[in-house]
Amino acid sequence: MFDRIALIGIGLIGSSLARVIAQKGLARHVAIASRSVDTLKRAEQLKLGQSYHTDPAEAVREADLVIVSVPVGSSGAVAEAIAPALKPGTILTDVGSTKASVIAQMSPFVPEGVHFIPGHPLAGTEKSGPDAGFADLFVNRWCIFTPLPDTDPAALDRLAAFWRACGSNIDVMDATHHDKVLAIVSHLPHIIAYNIVGTADDLQNVSKTEVIKYAASGFRDFTRLAASDPTMWRDVCLHNRDAILEMLSRFSEDLAALQRAIRWGDGDKLFDLFTHTRGVRRSIIDAGQEIDVPDFGRHVAEQPAKS
Amino acid sequence: MFDRIALIGIGLIGSSLARVIAQKGLARHVAIASRSVDTLKRAEQLKLGQSYHTDPAEAVREADLVIVSVPVGSSGAVAEAIAPALKPGTILTDVGSTKASVIAQMSPFVPEGVHFIPGHPLAGTEKSGPDAGFADLFVNRWCIFTPLPDTDPAALDRLAAFWRACGSNIDVMDATHHDKVLAIVSHLPHIIAYNIVGTADDLQNVSKTEVIKYAASGFRDFTRLAASDPTMWRDVCLHNRDAILEMLSRFSEDLAALQRAIRWGDGDKLFDLFTHTRGVRRSIIDAGQEIDVPDFGRHVAEQPAKS
Ligand SMILES: NC(=O)c1ccc[n+]([C@@H]2O[C@H](COP(=O)([O-])OP(=O)(O)OC[C@H]3O[C@@H](n4cnc5c(N)ncnc54)[C@H](OP(=O)(O)O)[C@@H]3O)[C@@H](O)[C@H]2O)c1
Ligand SMILES: NC(=O)c1ccc[n+]([C@@H]2O[C@H](COP(=O)([O-])OP(=O)(O)OC[C@H]3O[C@@H](n4cnc5c(N)ncnc54)[C@H](OP(=O)(O)O)[C@@H]3O)[C@@H](O)[C@H]2O)c1
Repeated sequence: MFDRIALIGIGLIGSSLARVIAQKGLARHVAIASRSVDTLKRAEQLKLGQSYHTDPAEAVREADLVIVSVPVGSSGAVAEAIAPALKPGTILTDVGSTKASVIAQMSPFVPEGVHFIPGHPLAGTEKSGPDAGFADLFVNRWCIFTPLPDTDPAALDRLAAFWRACGSNIDVMDATHHDKVLAIVSHLPHIIAYNIVGTADDLQNVSKTEVIKYAASGFRDFTRLAASDPTMWRDVCLHNRDAILEMLSRFSEDLAALQRAIRWGDGDKLFDLFTHTRGVRRSIIDAGQEIDVPDFGRHVAEQPAKS
Repeated sequence: MFDRIALIGIGLIGSSLARVIAQKGLARHVAIASRSVDTLKRAEQLKLGQSYHTDPAEAVREADLVIVSVPVGSSGAVAEAIAPALKPGTILTDVGSTKASVIAQMSPFVPEGVHFIPGHPLAGTEKSGPDAGFADLFVNRWCIFTPLPDTDPAALDRLAAFWRACGSNIDVMDATHHDKVLAIVSHLPHIIAYNIVGTADDLQNVSKTEVIKYAASGFRDFTRLAASDPTMWRDVCLHNRDAILEMLSRFSEDLAALQRAIRWGDGDKLFDLFTHTRGVRRSIIDAGQEIDVPDFGRHVAEQPAKS
């Protein structure tokens, strides 16, 4: 499908791409660049590509597809570093969780003739680094492109075909809308999860030991998101500030109303909200974006031998 | 272990008890009572006990252990209904998620000579009803007793032995402390989950379809808790109001600080919080209260055939 793909950043997302590219034979040569020597070495041990580079410019030379998979706050620096080595006709894309900021950081460096198409695969886990990736990560997940007005439709088609080959479904929208949508479906959930785990850890009248012992009664569900990579999430917060603040204020407003219903013992209002939200989960399961195994199938995972 | 156990309420918790009692042979006779004829019929089809009663007083007659597993707001009415039929020496317990309110509702009806020992197994899923239960539900989970000052130690030991036979670990604390601990480890997480799902469903600039399509990027983790039984959770909110309001105000205070850090671009503060919370998850996994399969093992559950 491509002759040479350069993967800049080889963490969870980059290494999942490397694995699916190898599995499906989507490139003749995969050139891998990472910032640290350790990560690069690990990628080599895992045989994730054909060449390994500490200098990202070396990796992108002669590449016809370049995928930048680094924390969004580093996109500008990466673009600056690779720009001189990009050949005309190359497709340059990224996987960053925020889009307006990535566009603002990267586009100034994109040379004439290079097709810059910002992208974001909505797939991930709480793990990071080259060991965390797996080839199926993108299967049945959405990949959103936020193309610039002058994007070449043929290049977009080629990139879409690549992501489809990785198992993704494709959507296209503008970067501002992307950032608002992601603020509610992804960024707010992570921030709230980080916050509640922080609150629980700071209490005086309930000990940390108690929080940990009794976590199975609800709390633990939040800890998965709150175990995600701190650098990635710091960057997301800094680079999608306005949309996140908007969603946070909506959330807080609703929480104040819920709090009032609890204070005044308004059982009907509580019952209505708690009934309404059930349907949302049903729809997500029906859309194939969640499993309906009770307890997320933790029980199955803990005791896989039992029937 | 017991001659006759009466299960009042045969939903997720009651039916899990019925299953483990049968599996481990913990009673000669299990008498089941439920409010509705439908639920009772279903329990009979599932062969969950030896006798089935619409009148809970009939079920508890001659029972030496009575376990009340109904929404906490109904504890008082159930206690009133069964009180005249309880024989001296019987152990009466419950599984309600709040304890001070259950004690206030039930104790006035408990006859002289009956051992009332409030309890709460910290185990559950988002499902409810008699089909949802399973025998392993309580394995390696904590069961907390909040005994009254005059509790007979021998009765407490007998009840503890029963729960240990179900697979539980036992803790004892006073009801007020229980209610504070549960407010943070269970009630607040559920309320926050219900709230965020409600917020996402009410936005104008992001459609419901988008929320559902893109849920895998974080949002879906909250929907499991937000799919829990509305009656149960309305009752929990109404019956643990003060502790919940206290935890909500701590949560909101912390969220305001986090919001300020986002607004002012304080990356170090964000990074510190996001790093700190990772350790909490590690401890919960080490304590055996969570699994470390990435993504909760959803991937495994979705594609169980693959290696
Ligand atoms: N994780 C998710 O769930 C998810 C989902 C969708 C999109 N994304 C987006 O995907 C991107 C990568 O995330 P990930 O989960 O793959 O992260 P990750 O596992 O932590 O890997 C990050 C990679 O970026 C490199 N890197 C870090 N800081 C860098 C810098 N300042 N300059 C150059 N390279 C740097 C790292 O190199 P070294 O290890 O050598 O330092 C590593 O190769 C982020 O933009 C994120 O927003 C993540
Ligand atoms: N679910 C959890 O995760 C969990 C965990 C620990 C403790 N608990 C506690 O366990 C108790 C039961 O929860 P569950 O999950 O087993 O609930 P469930 O699956 O919804 O079952 C509730 C049972 O209570 C009966 N019931 C409902 N309203 C009643 C009323 N007004 N009077 C008499 N009986 C009534 C129901 O009877 P009909 O179906 O016949 O109406 C049903 O048998 C609650 O107090 C809850 O706080 C739950």
